[in-house]
Amino acid sequence: MNSASLPVVLLTCGDPAGIGPEVVVKAWASTPAHDRARLRVVTDAAVLARSLVGRAGLPALPIDVVAPDDPRGSHGGRLLVIEPAGLRPGDAPGGGGASPPVDAVPIRAGVATAAGGAAAAAAVLAAAHLVRTGRARGIVTGPLHKAALQAAGFDVPGHTELLARDCGLDDDAVSMMLWLPTAPGPGGLGVVHVTLHEPLARAVTRITTSGIVEAGGRLAGLLAPLVGRPPRIAVAALNPHAGESGLFGDEEERIVAPAVRRLVAAGIDATGPLPADTLFLRAAAGGFDGVVALYHDQGHIPVKLLGMHRAVNITLGLPLVRTSVAHGTAFDIVGTGAADPASMLAAIDAAERLVAAGWPAATDTGHAQLDRRDAIPGAQLP
Amino acid sequence: MNSASLPVVLLTCGDPAGIGPEVVVKAWASTPAHDRARLRVVTDAAVLARSLVGRAGLPALPIDVVAPDDPRGSHGGRLLVIEPAGLRPGDAPGGGGASPPVDAVPIRAGVATAAGGAAAAAAVLAAAHLVRTGRARGIVTGPLHKAALQAAGFDVPGHTELLARDCGLDDDAVSMMLWLPTAPGPGGLGVVHVTLHEPLARAVTRITTSGIVEAGGRLAGLLAPLVGRPPRIAVAALNPHAGESGLFGDEEERIVAPAVRRLVAAGIDATGPLPADTLFLRAAAGGFDGVVALYHDQGHIPVKLLGMHRAVNITLGLPLVRTSVAHGTAFDIVGTGAADPASMLAAIDAAERLVAAGWPAATDTGHAQLDRRDAIPGAQLP
Repeated sequence: MNSASLPVVLLTCGDPAGIGPEVVVKAWASTPAHDRARLRVVTDAAVLARSLVGRAGLPALPIDVVAPDDPRGSHGGRLLVIEPAGLRPGDAPGGGGASPPVDAVPIRAGVATAAGGAAAAAAVLAAAHLVRTGRARGIVTGPLHKAALQAAGFDVPGHTELLARDCGLDDDAVSMMLWLPTAPGPGGLGVVHVTLHEPLARAVTRITTSGIVEAGGRLAGLLAPLVGRPPRIAVAALNPHAGESGLFGDEEERIVAPAVRRLVAAGIDATGPLPADTLFLRAAAGGFDGVVALYHDQGHIPVKLLGMHRAVNITLGLPLVRTSVAHGTAFDIVGTGAADPASMLAAIDAAERLVAAGWPAATDTGHAQLDRRDAIPGAQLP
Repeated sequence: MNSASLPVVLLTCGDPAGIGPEVVVKAWASTPAHDRARLRVVTDAAVLARSLVGRAGLPALPIDVVAPDDPRGSHGGRLLVIEPAGLRPGDAPGGGGASPPVDAVPIRAGVATAAGGAAAAAAVLAAAHLVRTGRARGIVTGPLHKAALQAAGFDVPGHTELLARDCGLDDDAVSMMLWLPTAPGPGGLGVVHVTLHEPLARAVTRITTSGIVEAGGRLAGLLAPLVGRPPRIAVAALNPHAGESGLFGDEEERIVAPAVRRLVAAGIDATGPLPADTLFLRAAAGGFDGVVALYHDQGHIPVKLLGMHRAVNITLGLPLVRTSVAHGTAFDIVGTGAADPASMLAAIDAAERLVAAGWPAATDTGHAQLDRRDAIPGAQLP
């Protein structure tokens, strides 16, 4: 098989002032040549070169700028770069994202600027364009800086919503799975959330049977190609001791248990509601492949404890494969050489596995079987 | 120093049908002789002997029944037992707990019975009596079975409330610290909760500035003798990203931050509110000695992931030292020899360290400095 027939996965660096360029270059350097054949970095070459100036401990990787359809592999470790400029003619900040003129990008390590945000957005939108036009199969994104992105005129919290809008989707149509590939299970451990970025007092009122069914179905569909068999899904309880038979709350009986029954009816190996504290202990020991967490910290506390630096974000709901590092721009360590490429490497691995499995199309069937008639919280319950 | 001058620490086995007797015997066997000199097991000797029949992998430890004031140490590893019968004349199930007649205790491994609950209660109440009458300094408890305890006529959820009522205190006057002695900090990691066994939707409305101040003050007072210096206390936030500057909730600004300021004003090295997910990552790396968690799962998820089998419960608010294993009766593994005495050993170690530090009296001063004028949630806040 020559490299021309391989599905291409595109890497973007995120904000050039953060650790993104560093983890991309380190990941590239530690990736075997035969794997690099199917990777490309989407970035303005001058911006990338400038962002790497003065950084400690980086491998010397000369840059080859290549055309999107160029089938060549990497020789001598050279970084294969596709430049975003001109790929999406007519794009402009706020609606798209052509690169700003290179001279106008004042990359200063650890400083958020509109130029940095614009460069990050331009790269990921160009990458999405390449996937949609059939010239690549997946995108792996480095860390963005939200303020820089917004300063550049993109009124979104991050890559996920930027890509959703670029694909014509509402923000609500997409969600994230946190994936720990190094957890003991055969396919690592995936965690999705039913509620996420909202006050906990509000989140507890917005957990619905349909929301859990939706999250569990997406999780199972995404994990299947990563695990290699029907994944075992655990659904967390909301209350201490899973409500202790109603003594500490009735949401388990009223909201969570019906969702688990519907997931099971749809052919998903789902268990729950399980007390969240022992659930993650069992999941960490390989007892589950995926966990549906009901609110932000319920999922994030264990995922971070279990291996923050190797966690991957995988976007659910987009019509393309998109994975991401689970860390931020880490402005405080930019240039010290301390940035760990483990999450970037795991994100590349996840993207390639999903691409190889034909995801996301392969999961549509199981997902469509799910019964979501209970859009009104609690309305359908006995 | 002969053993007569050593402060005595009393061990109880909890429910005789659970793994309590097994972890006590295993802990005794692995404790050096000079340490055993100050330990006694409070139990009916025949109940203990019967509960150990047929259990795999136990060391052979002959039992010596001794009087409460007997200063002898243990010879040849013999288990030194103080029997509860007759120590508290007039006690009866429901109000105290003289042992039932031995023949009436049908110990069946892994089965909850009223007789087992009565034996467990009799032992711990006898132990408390010995501490209050100056013949011992601390109590280490094995795991109870709640249903067995209630079947025996004790309408309490567990040891903690049983001891509180025996000391003439309300249930609300006592609380628990979960302690992980093996966490990387110099004194392990302690976690207290502001709310615990109630529905999460109610708990989020019951987190108050005064509750956090109270919990943080108790935590600092208890950790000081374990850490050996003023402990560093982290206070968790309630909302994702600690509320992200008010975007995801205002409890951080309105309730948690004022509590941290009061703790600092009382001379306690307190930090917060901190996002709960990264907080525990820092705590697990030794960055804090103690954490104030705002609700059950926020503290229990990380503690269990960080080392459930070595965790210790320490009771706060009692006029005596009482520590406990952090695990349950584990009826499913009774008799298999699989019970791990690590938590019992850690609980003994914690009790001895607290006794040596003169706790709880030593902590009264710091505790009394705390300002708790805000008993009405939110009423005092700007």
